Amino acid sequence: MKNLNNSKLKIIPLGGLEQIGLNITAFQFEDSIIVVDCGLAFPEDDMLGIDLVIPDVTYLKNNISKVKGFIITHGHEDHIGALPYILRDVNVPIYATKLTIGIIERKLKEHNLLKNTKRKVVKHGQSINLGAFRIEFIKTNHSIADASALAIYSPAGTVIHTGDFKVDYTPVFGDAIDLQRFGEIGKKGVLALMCDSTNAERPGFTMSERTVGKTFDNIFSEHRNTRIIIATFASNVDRVQQIINSAYKYGRKVVVEGRSMVNIISTALELGYINIPENTLIEIEQMKNYPDEQMVLITTGSQGESMAALSRMASDVHRKVSIKPGDTVIFSSNPIPGNEKAVSKVINELSMKGADVIFQDAHVSGHACQEEIKLIYSLVHPKYALPVHGEYRHRKAQAAIAESLGIPKDRIFMLHSGDVFEVNGESGAVVDHVQAGAILVDGLGVGDVGNIVLRDRQHLAEDGILIVVLTLEKYSNQVLAGPDIVSRGFVYVRESESLMDEARHVVEHALDECMERRISDWGKIKNIIKDSLSDFLWKKTKRNPMILPIIMEV
Amino acid sequence: MKNLNNSKLKIIPLGGLEQIGLNITAFQFEDSIIVVDCGLAFPEDDMLGIDLVIPDVTYLKNNISKVKGFIITHGHEDHIGALPYILRDVNVPIYATKLTIGIIERKLKEHNLLKNTKRKVVKHGQSINLGAFRIEFIKTNHSIADASALAIYSPAGTVIHTGDFKVDYTPVFGDAIDLQRFGEIGKKGVLALMCDSTNAERPGFTMSERTVGKTFDNIFSEHRNTRIIIATFASNVDRVQQIINSAYKYGRKVVVEGRSMVNIISTALELGYINIPENTLIEIEQMKNYPDEQMVLITTGSQGESMAALSRMASDVHRKVSIKPGDTVIFSSNPIPGNEKAVSKVINELSMKGADVIFQDAHVSGHACQEEIKLIYSLVHPKYALPVHGEYRHRKAQAAIAESLGIPKDRIFMLHSGDVFEVNGESGAVVDHVQAGAILVDGLGVGDVGNIVLRDRQHLAEDGILIVVLTLEKYSNQVLAGPDIVSRGFVYVRESESLMDEARHVVEHALDECMERRISDWGKIKNIIKDSLSDFLWKKTKRNPMILPIIMEV
Repeated sequence: MKNLNNSKLKIIPLGGLEQIGLNITAFQFEDSIIVVDCGLAFPEDDMLGIDLVIPDVTYLKNNISKVKGFIITHGHEDHIGALPYILRDVNVPIYATKLTIGIIERKLKEHNLLKNTKRKVVKHGQSINLGAFRIEFIKTNHSIADASALAIYSPAGTVIHTGDFKVDYTPVFGDAIDLQRFGEIGKKGVLALMCDSTNAERPGFTMSERTVGKTFDNIFSEHRNTRIIIATFASNVDRVQQIINSAYKYGRKVVVEGRSMVNIISTALELGYINIPENTLIEIEQMKNYPDEQMVLITTGSQGESMAALSRMASDVHRKVSIKPGDTVIFSSNPIPGNEKAVSKVINELSMKGADVIFQDAHVSGHACQEEIKLIYSLVHPKYALPVHGEYRHRKAQAAIAESLGIPKDRIFMLHSGDVFEVNGESGAVVDHVQAGAILVDGLGVGDVGNIVLRDRQHLAEDGILIVVLTLEKYSNQVLAGPDIVSRGFVYVRESESLMDEARHVVEHALDECMERRISDWGKIKNIIKDSLSDFLWKKTKRNPMILPIIMEV
Repeated sequence: MKNLNNSKLKIIPLGGLEQIGLNITAFQFEDSIIVVDCGLAFPEDDMLGIDLVIPDVTYLKNNISKVKGFIITHGHEDHIGALPYILRDVNVPIYATKLTIGIIERKLKEHNLLKNTKRKVVKHGQSINLGAFRIEFIKTNHSIADASALAIYSPAGTVIHTGDFKVDYTPVFGDAIDLQRFGEIGKKGVLALMCDSTNAERPGFTMSERTVGKTFDNIFSEHRNTRIIIATFASNVDRVQQIINSAYKYGRKVVVEGRSMVNIISTALELGYINIPENTLIEIEQMKNYPDEQMVLITTGSQGESMAALSRMASDVHRKVSIKPGDTVIFSSNPIPGNEKAVSKVINELSMKGADVIFQDAHVSGHACQEEIKLIYSLVHPKYALPVHGEYRHRKAQAAIAESLGIPKDRIFMLHSGDVFEVNGESGAVVDHVQAGAILVDGLGVGDVGNIVLRDRQHLAEDGILIVVLTLEKYSNQVLAGPDIVSRGFVYVRESESLMDEARHVVEHALDECMERRISDWGKIKNIIKDSLSDFLWKKTKRNPMILPIIMEV
């Protein structure tokens, strides 16, 4: 007979709760593990030089024989981006809807992983069986097509995971969210709801994507005599569709610019998720054949990313497009928290070039606001609430909503990465903690930049470095050459020659002292150099550069 | 007879147009120069290690005999903060209203500059005569008391400078903005209006400061059983007044925490700008004598500044206050652009400690929105519009408002720092450009960190540094010691010993090559080391650390 624990479902977030973006959750029942999503995160401000962040999947590696597959809710980077890194160690099949698989395949191809990875397209309404689990894909709406919620059926009960979602009664492409199915499953009894918290602090209801189309129509009708440039998220295919609709209506040709945008649109076109009237889309090289008032440029860079197409146009380093006075530039996006200043910089640069910049009403969120969250809770009526997606404050806001809807406080869990939440019809609790969290990727290095390196980078960034080099004679410890002082990132040397001369004297004094006190241990000599130089520089400059003494021996 | 130019007024912004915060404008008529405001800016993200930014006042130094005084519109850092730095070279009297002078005096005392600086308190409605100028102080409203607009009368005509302002019909302290006087001066004819653009993109009217008081009352009445902690801007005396009012009403004691907050409140108390009922304010040490539900803590840190009191409480390093579950924490502020993430981090930390965090409706802006800007333009009816204060996009938005009100496009000027705008009743134009802009302050160094140092810091921050040291024999160029490689901020060395071994071999190869090719020039040897090591590391790691070869000679 199994012990009680084994008859319970384990839910283990492996990332994504402290670090936004690392969305990955393991579901385990006995010897079956399934993994929902596999996202990457972008580095925080204090992760200097880091390119991206991926989840620590040690738990999956240690239980590799049990892992049945990845279930992916939708094709955004924070849900699929870590796959190329994780698949190397956890090579199991991937299950997702058609567009999501299409986007994943393009990514795997870039990483040369396509051949060795099994993929399976699942339709909304369909289920797949993986070990002890059955997983049903439920249609939702989001800022990318083909997003799914998941009903995860296990012998211990059913969990609903919404993925990222909103409720759009009038979506641009395909159907509205399948609210009926949420209700039907809810009626049968749901153990736990894992619901998107991103907008849980925002009251009301997120507007339909279709409302943005009306804004585009208005802007196009008011700006008939200028070129129109629209920046939006590369993956928002419906947004691009609506721009194309307005362009067609107002007799304009469309150019798509920016690598990620071109990639996604190609995939969407191939798979039938976007509908472009003939002769509307043209190549960027053909732009010169059309007058400005017949052009729309759809571009990446809505977040002020310095390498993206719009930023390059704004700072005049784009090879094919220059901003002209009179251009109408639309930001069809909101800045993601942390990007506000970068976006503002681009807007300022565009304004200085004489562009008319529009950033109001040309965007709606892809996430559910408070009333939509309440709707889902009311349909699903879960026993346990496990708020997911969003910062802690957002998940906490959802917890407050769940409580306001009558879910007892002791059945609402704010999980942390690595928590093992064990649940069945009788009880639910965090019973254990496994290794989980964030791994930093820098260039080709995965996990080789840790806290010490980051702390050094921070120190170097703040005040630069002074290197003190000297050559000592073996045994006698007489100084044969140096001390030489080289600095980088401290002060511009030509402006501070006397400071450097004084610094050299300070080191010479320190060395004399070492000789007098007959100190021959290099570690001690280095420390004495460091301390005396550090004191001197702090007094003189109130700065604290890294000081690195290097001793050579001849 | 004077030539035509001399009968014109010159307006020269010396900073503040590209770098937000560096508010300082010189007005010159013949041999008289007056300077409006003298602000400092906080460093941009790419100014690594920089503490603050001050304006370049070379123009004032070169014309020191003509400079009659500083006229300060209000006591915010971005209008007074550079005074301690600039006064050393440009020691002229300071003119401002009472609270503004009070705040400046506290600052000058800290810098030991009080004795050598002349100050004069001016009342609203009063004028001062400085050389060819008469300057009238006009009452306005802003997020600090005693803010002024200036009417600057010169033989060439009158300029109105609003300073930072809003229109508050029901201010908490003192009178509403003197709209009648704006109208009266406008009726007589105004040459140019320099109006605050900060909120020029926002439609409508900024709410009265008094509305925040109502929000506090509501929050206090709804949270009778918890401690209340409120973070706001140190200098918003009226905000603090309203918190104290609510505290008194609901029978709570008040503690003020955070150095800058304590400073400003003391100054405001001394000068009669705040009214605290007896026995309401207590010392932080007395807090333990009162139950939580009888306490309000007013604190700095509303911008997520890592060293401020609230951030220290949130991360559990405050010496006197720990956040407890149930605490109500109110952000009576909006994040200034660029601070969003830092603020969110603090909110997350507070939530994790169980605090209830409120950040809605507990703040109003101190700047005029579009309808208020239109009101001022309509009262002043200037011939020329010179939008000031705010980013380029905001100033441009004001330019659009000015145009919509009938000011011809060719009389609206978007000035740049250093532009010399020459104007009188007949004409106005930018006729010259003087040295101006930003000077970086790092520790005690003013201006000694330039682009090269910043670029090095950026490079060091991204990928760290590898130092290659070797000792060569004089004349023979034989390697006597090394090559040794030391790295910081690159990869953690213990994890990459083999990489470092390989790197050493690469350098040895490069040295062998130099010997074979009989290269003895150190510059060339260093370049060859650098290039070969750089290639090797890029191939191995896709990283590009700074490489610094150092050669010693024995």
